Amino acid sequence: MELRSIRWDGRCAEIIDQSELPSKLVFRRLCSLEEFADAIKTMKVRGAPLIGITAAYGVVAHVKSVEPENYDELVREADRAVEILKATRPTAVNLFKALQRVRSAIDPAGTIEENVYRMESTAVEIDREEEEMCRLMGEHGAGVIEKPSARVMTICNTGFLATSGIGTALGVIYTAHEMGKIERVFALETRPVLQGARLTMWELLQRKVPAYLITDNTAAAVMDRIGIDYIFVGADRIAANGDTANKIGTLMLAILAHRFGVPFYVVAPGSTIDPNCPNGREIPIEQRDKNEVIRVMGCQIAPAEADAINFAFDVTPASLITGIITEKGVFRPENIMEAIRDRQVR
Amino acid sequence: MELRSIRWDGRCAEIIDQSELPSKLVFRRLCSLEEFADAIKTMKVRGAPLIGITAAYGVVAHVKSVEPENYDELVREADRAVEILKATRPTAVNLFKALQRVRSAIDPAGTIEENVYRMESTAVEIDREEEEMCRLMGEHGAGVIEKPSARVMTICNTGFLATSGIGTALGVIYTAHEMGKIERVFALETRPVLQGARLTMWELLQRKVPAYLITDNTAAAVMDRIGIDYIFVGADRIAANGDTANKIGTLMLAILAHRFGVPFYVVAPGSTIDPNCPNGREIPIEQRDKNEVIRVMGCQIAPAEADAINFAFDVTPASLITGIITEKGVFRPENIMEAIRDRQVR
Repeated sequence: MELRSIRWDGRCAEIIDQSELPSKLVFRRLCSLEEFADAIKTMKVRGAPLIGITAAYGVVAHVKSVEPENYDELVREADRAVEILKATRPTAVNLFKALQRVRSAIDPAGTIEENVYRMESTAVEIDREEEEMCRLMGEHGAGVIEKPSARVMTICNTGFLATSGIGTALGVIYTAHEMGKIERVFALETRPVLQGARLTMWELLQRKVPAYLITDNTAAAVMDRIGIDYIFVGADRIAANGDTANKIGTLMLAILAHRFGVPFYVVAPGSTIDPNCPNGREIPIEQRDKNEVIRVMGCQIAPAEADAINFAFDVTPASLITGIITEKGVFRPENIMEAIRDRQVR
Repeated sequence: MELRSIRWDGRCAEIIDQSELPSKLVFRRLCSLEEFADAIKTMKVRGAPLIGITAAYGVVAHVKSVEPENYDELVREADRAVEILKATRPTAVNLFKALQRVRSAIDPAGTIEENVYRMESTAVEIDREEEEMCRLMGEHGAGVIEKPSARVMTICNTGFLATSGIGTALGVIYTAHEMGKIERVFALETRPVLQGARLTMWELLQRKVPAYLITDNTAAAVMDRIGIDYIFVGADRIAANGDTANKIGTLMLAILAHRFGVPFYVVAPGSTIDPNCPNGREIPIEQRDKNEVIRVMGCQIAPAEADAINFAFDVTPASLITGIITEKGVFRPENIMEAIRDRQVR
């Protein structure tokens, strides 16, 4: 059975505890509201889509466990669960959307049983939709690989640990690998939080995809001396003109790709596109705690008094992006609004 | 009194123990041959020029301590010291050259006292020459900074911990800072060994130069969002056409500098130029142990089974280099052989 970041059994969710990776593979059963909230808060689960799915199951698990006797109690308990889960990661948009969707499933005209069933179906639907979107992005993305045996590069973690499916950029690599198209993956370690070293390398080993870990500053030398055929990265937010915000280091990769003539693809679901953001200059860059830079997994690597800049992400201009791969297909960055045409018409 | 990486008192050398940095500033007195050899072997001193100077003083300290009674004993003890010190870092060219020079100072026609004096003078001379070369590079380099308040970027450690003077690339920054030309230094942490985080940030704090530490993958975002005026880097080896091998990450910086229109300078003494190497393609890239990548200061950051590429350095093409700053002045990379014209004529 393939590893999946979360499995729902009708009462509880079983997750991979990502805070234990890469040294140990620990599964945890989440049954109570407190267990769900703690798993999100302490980053046992991470990745925007996965956080949303976990929270959705959390509301359902809570409502099922309290066995409400009437409609008011059902609503009260559902609202309490939503509030507690919402507070776990205050800036996570997917989290709010997923909680909102499960809460909206409650219908005053329905019985308790009907409503619990509707809520559970909604949570499962969010999970399955996510999985299906990953599958579609994987197929569209693998289609752009024309070489029989490609060397590909990626940054951060965008695989099955970040979603309930195979992932976004890494999902493309998995799909292409199953088609025999991948010779080797070069994974950037992704300082400061090292998602590439800790999570992506672990995923690639689990799936037996041949891979090398490299420090972020080695990407240029690898393109120069070894040669890279394709780069696939995820996205935090895509502006209407195709400019893309993603993990710090993505802009560097795009500039290097341009220099060495390597096709550079962004892989992200349509929900990542923000039609209200005209271009990347409008996206403010989140600055995080300097201690993420001056420490590595608890070890002090610089003087404690040292100042540091810690940008969480950077913005890659559309002009450096070969294509954006969504569940709808592959788009040129300047045409990315076509990927959400249906959404706008509605 | 300013910090200096090594001080000679006529019997012993006092060094800054770099293996204790950045958490503690520990000075160590090296008096016996064993203490000198151990300091180099265990990287209490590092940086090619500093290793050579330390070894030169090691031979002198040994010969002085054994008080040889005749010429044969002097030569025997000097040769023993040279052999032991040579074996500490088998690939260090500066080390061999410095040992050779001190050994060559012995003159069969001289008395024991005269010969010991000649050896000591030679070691002191190597030390002073190095210091003077740093001073000259600093002055030439500071001259290229035309802005009154520049933001500069650098990689690795090229300061007073790597030399017996103020350093090469970082020496330029110190000289410019004393002239009031530096607003802020952005120092790349320089994975995998983190010389930027551990040593450069410590040096900059000691000298009270305003600085930010950044992860290597943040350089592009800093050029994009904050703006950088100049980049100064060191060099391991410069080919006859100006192509330059330096710490991994330098090629990335040069490509980013080109994209953002930032002047990119290499700072290195003429001894770094290799007239027998026509271009950078001829320079083989040293691959080091994968454990430097999958661990950071003893912490495991990736699965132990993970493969890794660990290039010690990369090669920047001359076309991406604005100028090369040596003790003789500032050269366009295509004219770098002019910097050693005297040497070739001899």
